[in-house]
Amino acid sequence: MITQVSPAGSMDLLSQLEVERLKKTASSDLYQLYRNCSLAVLNSGSHTDNSKELLDKYTNFDITVMRRERGVKLELTNPPEHAFVDGHIIKGIQEHLFSVLRDIVYVNMHIAEGQKLNLTNSTHITNLVFGILRNAGALIPGTAPNLVVCWGGHSINPVEYQYTREVGNELGLRELNICTGCGPGAMEGPMKGAAIGHAKQRYADKRYIGLTEPSIIAAEPPNPIVNELIIMPDIEKRLEAFVRMAHGIIIFPGGPGTAEELLYLLGIMMHPDNATQPMPIVLTGPKESEDYFRSIDEFICETLGPEAQKHYTIVVDDPAEAARIMKNAMPKIRQQRKDNEDAYSFNWSLKIEPEFQLPFEPTHENMANLDLHLNQRPEVLAANLRQAFSGIVAGNVKAEGIREIERHGPFRLHGDPKLMKKMDKLLKDFVEQHRMKLPGGSAYVPCYRIES
Amino acid sequence: MITQVSPAGSMDLLSQLEVERLKKTASSDLYQLYRNCSLAVLNSGSHTDNSKELLDKYTNFDITVMRRERGVKLELTNPPEHAFVDGHIIKGIQEHLFSVLRDIVYVNMHIAEGQKLNLTNSTHITNLVFGILRNAGALIPGTAPNLVVCWGGHSINPVEYQYTREVGNELGLRELNICTGCGPGAMEGPMKGAAIGHAKQRYADKRYIGLTEPSIIAAEPPNPIVNELIIMPDIEKRLEAFVRMAHGIIIFPGGPGTAEELLYLLGIMMHPDNATQPMPIVLTGPKESEDYFRSIDEFICETLGPEAQKHYTIVVDDPAEAARIMKNAMPKIRQQRKDNEDAYSFNWSLKIEPEFQLPFEPTHENMANLDLHLNQRPEVLAANLRQAFSGIVAGNVKAEGIREIERHGPFRLHGDPKLMKKMDKLLKDFVEQHRMKLPGGSAYVPCYRIES
Amino acid sequence: MITQVSPAGSMDLLSQLEVERLKKTASSDLYQLYRNCSLAVLNSGSHTDNSKELLDKYTNFDITVMRRERGVKLELTNPPEHAFVDGHIIKGIQEHLFSVLRDIVYVNMHIAEGQKLNLTNSTHITNLVFGILRNAGALIPGTAPNLVVCWGGHSINPVEYQYTREVGNELGLRELNICTGCGPGAMEGPMKGAAIGHAKQRYADKRYIGLTEPSIIAAEPPNPIVNELIIMPDIEKRLEAFVRMAHGIIIFPGGPGTAEELLYLLGIMMHPDNATQPMPIVLTGPKESEDYFRSIDEFICETLGPEAQKHYTIVVDDPAEAARIMKNAMPKIRQQRKDNEDAYSFNWSLKIEPEFQLPFEPTHENMANLDLHLNQRPEVLAANLRQAFSGIVAGNVKAEGIREIERHGPFRLHGDPKLMKKMDKLLKDFVEQHRMKLPGGSAYVPCYRIES
Amino acid sequence: MITQVSPAGSMDLLSQLEVERLKKTASSDLYQLYRNCSLAVLNSGSHTDNSKELLDKYTNFDITVMRRERGVKLELTNPPEHAFVDGHIIKGIQEHLFSVLRDIVYVNMHIAEGQKLNLTNSTHITNLVFGILRNAGALIPGTAPNLVVCWGGHSINPVEYQYTREVGNELGLRELNICTGCGPGAMEGPMKGAAIGHAKQRYADKRYIGLTEPSIIAAEPPNPIVNELIIMPDIEKRLEAFVRMAHGIIIFPGGPGTAEELLYLLGIMMHPDNATQPMPIVLTGPKESEDYFRSIDEFICETLGPEAQKHYTIVVDDPAEAARIMKNAMPKIRQQRKDNEDAYSFNWSLKIEPEFQLPFEPTHENMANLDLHLNQRPEVLAANLRQAFSGIVAGNVKAEGIREIERHGPFRLHGDPKLMKKMDKLLKDFVEQHRMKLPGGSAYVPCYRIES
Repeated sequence: MITQVSPAGSMDLLSQLEVERLKKTASSDLYQLYRNCSLAVLNSGSHTDNSKELLDKYTNFDITVMRRERGVKLELTNPPEHAFVDGHIIKGIQEHLFSVLRDIVYVNMHIAEGQKLNLTNSTHITNLVFGILRNAGALIPGTAPNLVVCWGGHSINPVEYQYTREVGNELGLRELNICTGCGPGAMEGPMKGAAIGHAKQRYADKRYIGLTEPSIIAAEPPNPIVNELIIMPDIEKRLEAFVRMAHGIIIFPGGPGTAEELLYLLGIMMHPDNATQPMPIVLTGPKESEDYFRSIDEFICETLGPEAQKHYTIVVDDPAEAARIMKNAMPKIRQQRKDNEDAYSFNWSLKIEPEFQLPFEPTHENMANLDLHLNQRPEVLAANLRQAFSGIVAGNVKAEGIREIERHGPFRLHGDPKLMKKMDKLLKDFVEQHRMKLPGGSAYVPCYRIES
Repeated sequence: MITQVSPAGSMDLLSQLEVERLKKTASSDLYQLYRNCSLAVLNSGSHTDNSKELLDKYTNFDITVMRRERGVKLELTNPPEHAFVDGHIIKGIQEHLFSVLRDIVYVNMHIAEGQKLNLTNSTHITNLVFGILRNAGALIPGTAPNLVVCWGGHSINPVEYQYTREVGNELGLRELNICTGCGPGAMEGPMKGAAIGHAKQRYADKRYIGLTEPSIIAAEPPNPIVNELIIMPDIEKRLEAFVRMAHGIIIFPGGPGTAEELLYLLGIMMHPDNATQPMPIVLTGPKESEDYFRSIDEFICETLGPEAQKHYTIVVDDPAEAARIMKNAMPKIRQQRKDNEDAYSFNWSLKIEPEFQLPFEPTHENMANLDLHLNQRPEVLAANLRQAFSGIVAGNVKAEGIREIERHGPFRLHGDPKLMKKMDKLLKDFVEQHRMKLPGGSAYVPCYRIES
Repeated sequence: MITQVSPAGSMDLLSQLEVERLKKTASSDLYQLYRNCSLAVLNSGSHTDNSKELLDKYTNFDITVMRRERGVKLELTNPPEHAFVDGHIIKGIQEHLFSVLRDIVYVNMHIAEGQKLNLTNSTHITNLVFGILRNAGALIPGTAPNLVVCWGGHSINPVEYQYTREVGNELGLRELNICTGCGPGAMEGPMKGAAIGHAKQRYADKRYIGLTEPSIIAAEPPNPIVNELIIMPDIEKRLEAFVRMAHGIIIFPGGPGTAEELLYLLGIMMHPDNATQPMPIVLTGPKESEDYFRSIDEFICETLGPEAQKHYTIVVDDPAEAARIMKNAMPKIRQQRKDNEDAYSFNWSLKIEPEFQLPFEPTHENMANLDLHLNQRPEVLAANLRQAFSGIVAGNVKAEGIREIERHGPFRLHGDPKLMKKMDKLLKDFVEQHRMKLPGGSAYVPCYRIES
Repeated sequence: MITQVSPAGSMDLLSQLEVERLKKTASSDLYQLYRNCSLAVLNSGSHTDNSKELLDKYTNFDITVMRRERGVKLELTNPPEHAFVDGHIIKGIQEHLFSVLRDIVYVNMHIAEGQKLNLTNSTHITNLVFGILRNAGALIPGTAPNLVVCWGGHSINPVEYQYTREVGNELGLRELNICTGCGPGAMEGPMKGAAIGHAKQRYADKRYIGLTEPSIIAAEPPNPIVNELIIMPDIEKRLEAFVRMAHGIIIFPGGPGTAEELLYLLGIMMHPDNATQPMPIVLTGPKESEDYFRSIDEFICETLGPEAQKHYTIVVDDPAEAARIMKNAMPKIRQQRKDNEDAYSFNWSLKIEPEFQLPFEPTHENMANLDLHLNQRPEVLAANLRQAFSGIVAGNVKAEGIREIERHGPFRLHGDPKLMKKMDKLLKDFVEQHRMKLPGGSAYVPCYRIES
């Protein structure tokens, strides 16, 4: 089956050179990257979170960029059927296809070759993150702070899922916008809920921003509700985009990915330079998730110390309260940005240390070498723990990571026995609560081994 | 508590005379009517379907229309709290308040006194229905046929409710708009579903039209998703508005109100002048509702005859199919309107006989006098049966009707014993299936007695 | 030649009854009125100001209203050619055609029959003026005061015309909107100038409102720049619409029509109840018009007294200053409306006495009976003088008036010899300065005779 | 005087690095370039065409880019007063300020350093031109061909100016958009005329595109009507932008700049590869300009041959006809783009040889070395003549060129005596007709000397 798709949303025009470089004949990796991300967004709504499985299933899928009189067109060969209704592509998915094109072109042409940004330099990394978001139209000047980032697992139970919708509804009723990692579960619920809340308020400037990355997009394809999809080059730039765009962060129950996000966030918020940053952080879930949060809270307390706990509030079974905390913080954020002559749409003044910015490659060697001892500054420990969880996410759902585990067996994590025990406990809880992987497949086989 | 509300949506400006006539001091019924409808829309989301109960609960509610420099303002005294989020009125409800104002002003000032429309004349009734809809901005010229009217019970079970959402989603994905009676249950589900479907398609011209009437609005307050609320003067004009605006009709499970609607619709469609009207009619529900539709289908067959059955299709457990039938009919409707030089937005050419247009007042006398014999032309029998069910709806949920029953006991229905038996069976099924009234209150006490 | 025209702007849908009543076969005056107004707007850009001439020239012009699937269509038979570019009707003129339809339908159907407004009652007249403007969408709620009414002659010289454009440009640069009587000359120049000023300011909410009446529209057809055309039933309601919508008034040089407007305005502003009305009034023109304003100013002083002069400022040869006076007054007007809880868009609180509201029919008898003596209250004298000039305008350019003069010879005006002399002087100046009629035809033959 | 200006139109956000590089302290040429272009647009409406004079007059003008919470702000020190109305900057000029910022940032940061485009390579030059236009939002996908480029002198007489307005009005009435070099005279008239024509047609997508370059912008500041201002890096890229964006070209009377444009255009259109390009070219002016066009036509015939004459039509004194030729060509252009799978908004398939693309620096040496003999292929002769006229424009109005002439005396042009005589004749005509420079200053002193 061959279909042609016209532009929607962004990236209507490409130059001859840009089209040239995206051609399949070019034996480049760029085509593969582009093709795989496109396949992932077409796969929206499917029920696997195994990237490799998806790619293996659609080996005969192909995508070609063509210049036409009205702008660019895409030709899809053998695309997944769920992207279509009665033969017509769903508009939301069509937009996502062109978001992929936009970001791939921007990152790989304009920046990579072009700006010669020294990407080990902290300032340059931040400028790149800014450049990608600006090019995607995601930094809307003049809009007062109203963006709530929601984090949480892609594999959550129905009670938790319903709860995320209710929080979304309450956020929407308060005319707050939503940004998530754009997969299913806790990344989808708040958006669907907010869509209803926004409709009740006739809220026109509604934003459901999905921030993803090439290596996770296949496992967590964007829901079509996402009306701004942005593909960041890697998890570190994605996390930086989250925290610099966020005016508040809500964390729902989740697995190792959520743990990674929380550790990243606390590591940054604990930096002395960020002491006056007014960003509200709420951990919330239904009554049934109270225990889950208690064990996370304990883990944080025992590893990063009680100082870390001050940065967040736990709200149990009260969607309106979670939303109210966010809403009430907005005037403070507005004032702080004004005082600092900083942008509403991008938090330049947030200090992020290089250890949180430089890409961590989850090889067996890098995982084994992680310094997981308790006697380090909490921010540094947070950075290292973040990388450990990041590796586990890769081993669970990212194509590259899955391949590594297939080849070399589970990652080995060493460190302080006390710390290792705590981690082991937390991860086992995740397994038991089915937070590692979507249920339905075979039993979860851990991609890691804790060794002390 | 006193709050002021600014205009949203429609009716921004009133003349001095109009404001004068809506004043409370005017010992007129008009203020009461206006106040009660306003109270009803403020009560959106509450969980009673007893109009009288609502009115009794908020006796100290008051509303005043004021002219201000930026247009009209409303002052609310002691409004229901659920209409507000953190002290701010929900925008959707705010719009509804002004829709009420608009329609009350139009019907009671411009028409009643003004146009001297002879309201026993069929042409004039139709012109009035047209006038109200046009004034409400509900007849959008130039838009190709795409409006699906959804009928069904306000009291349905969770499985049925979920099904109506799925049908709504499929309609939304096909860029069809929704019109319902704007209460809960089957009147809300399709709208919520379509809201998600529309969002996936980035569909901008989304319409969730609620058509109601003063005597039912308190029992079935509009969901805030409704983005066009229209208050027709009575059930007969409301039904006429439904069928002249509809490009297709879907009927979900329901109680006596739904039976009334179906009988009204079949009575009209069976008129010889309407033989070439291409309107698709689908009765649909989840697998669990199959029996329900079977008994309805039988009742139609045995009363109006097999000819009546040809006008609808029963679709069980296939939301996409129900939506597809609607979508596929649209080009035919478009062509038929072109051929007849008739408006897309208002089906002038549909023949409606006076017995379907003239208001039926459900007094004990009128109910007792209904001619319920089988040996009449099916259209006429349909008209009489429609009135019988209409009376039962009034006795169940309308303030006026409830008061009548309290005073004089149940309505008595006479007629052909065979027919009476069938009706009795159908009504008993409704009772058993909790379709008469929202559950949660005391057991249902019938407002009618079948006598043959 | 037969052409069909689709709706643009307003009045997309008509009911069966409405279409019926506009039919030609209906031997009614309504069709004639409708046809003649339509012909007039199609004649935009032509170079005659003789209504009768125009009507005589296009006797074979015909217009038919038809209902179609996408709304109303108009069929034009033998329309004037200048309304078309390469066979396509100019969009501005197309909109005007539908404005005519909208106002004819509203005034003649909804109001006349309907609202049974007692049209000798001052309140009811004002409510009718409000109703027409609201129905035309001309009362935009929420917009802060910014509307400048410009009055002046349709027959002015090129230097004056260029000056009106410059004032328009300065008003446009200050984001003020324009309302005029919508003919050529001083009614067109400010709009064209403002269009350029607005373009420089990227001003989006630009309004070029033309207020006209059936009996003058043929002599002063609306320029296509007019983007809101409103047809008021007669000159008195038109004048009331001007002063209730205006937030400021600029008067350019002109003839008897302009004198009528100025006298009307002063008669109202001098009413004690209007003492606190902050409306700015500026008389302005190029250096070359200084004498013209001096003689007007004298005439006012000698007839209405020096008190009347306090209500206006004369600005010579300074477009920016004229515009600045308007701009600077806006905050005061805003405050006054707020303080009085009056609408920004319609000045309800302005007191207008019945003698300025009741239609004056310029028959020979009525003209002869005008009380033109100096020993009356200045407001009353202003009202009477207003009517005298109104009659002269009718005799000059209105079809009805021209016919009267043809039949019975010039109007005769009696009164105080001193006053008569002043009037005679003023009128003779108008004749000399070619302000009575567009030049190009034969020499001006006065339609009046001054007798003392 | 210090004023702060907020963004309007484009370029709302800058990264830290971008702001850094535009700082004055940076001893870079970039600041000077940026400052001078900004000063030029602020000078809109002034009456000098001498760039140097302008720069010398405002030596104490300063501009600073600042990041603020709502985006970028500009701080202006001592800006020219005519850019303001009652202390507020004119919105059109404000937009132009940010267009300058946008293009300076794009060209000098993203491209120059970044894309490492080999700018002696024809393909790369074209891709850069495309990139600048795309980044400026000037390539609107999906819009059918409708852009008419108007060329002509900045110094024309009032009769010619009025004629350009009338042509603009006729283009506007036909819903065609305008692109010019954005100075006064023939670059302004068509835009003002089209603004009125567009208003009559209620044409919403109106575009008045001004294409300029840093070295000419001060001499020909954009009129505030220009609603898309684009600063191309040099005259060659500017000319390429003109011809690749144009769907039709109208040439009004003008001086050496217009001659340069015509020669450039003919040189390209005569290329065999462009034989099937359907672009209409019209030379037009009022009756009074007939002789002017006759001498241009002769010059073309005698230098490039009768083949060259076939590429254009001369239309005398018929604005509607000139516009009609443009309008009628649009469907052909549309078809040709479709057939070639080429963009409507950018004519990729137009062949432009490197001699028309590579920047020509008008030094005395380069001017003296121009090969101006008749025995060369006409395209090559056209290229050389184009450069000769380009040099004369520089010597007349560009700051750099004026300085060169001040230092070294007039340029010397050598070549075929016959050709030199023709050029001399043409240039003398330009001088006599005041087409070299705006009148009002001292007598024109030629910046060239013709030597054979």
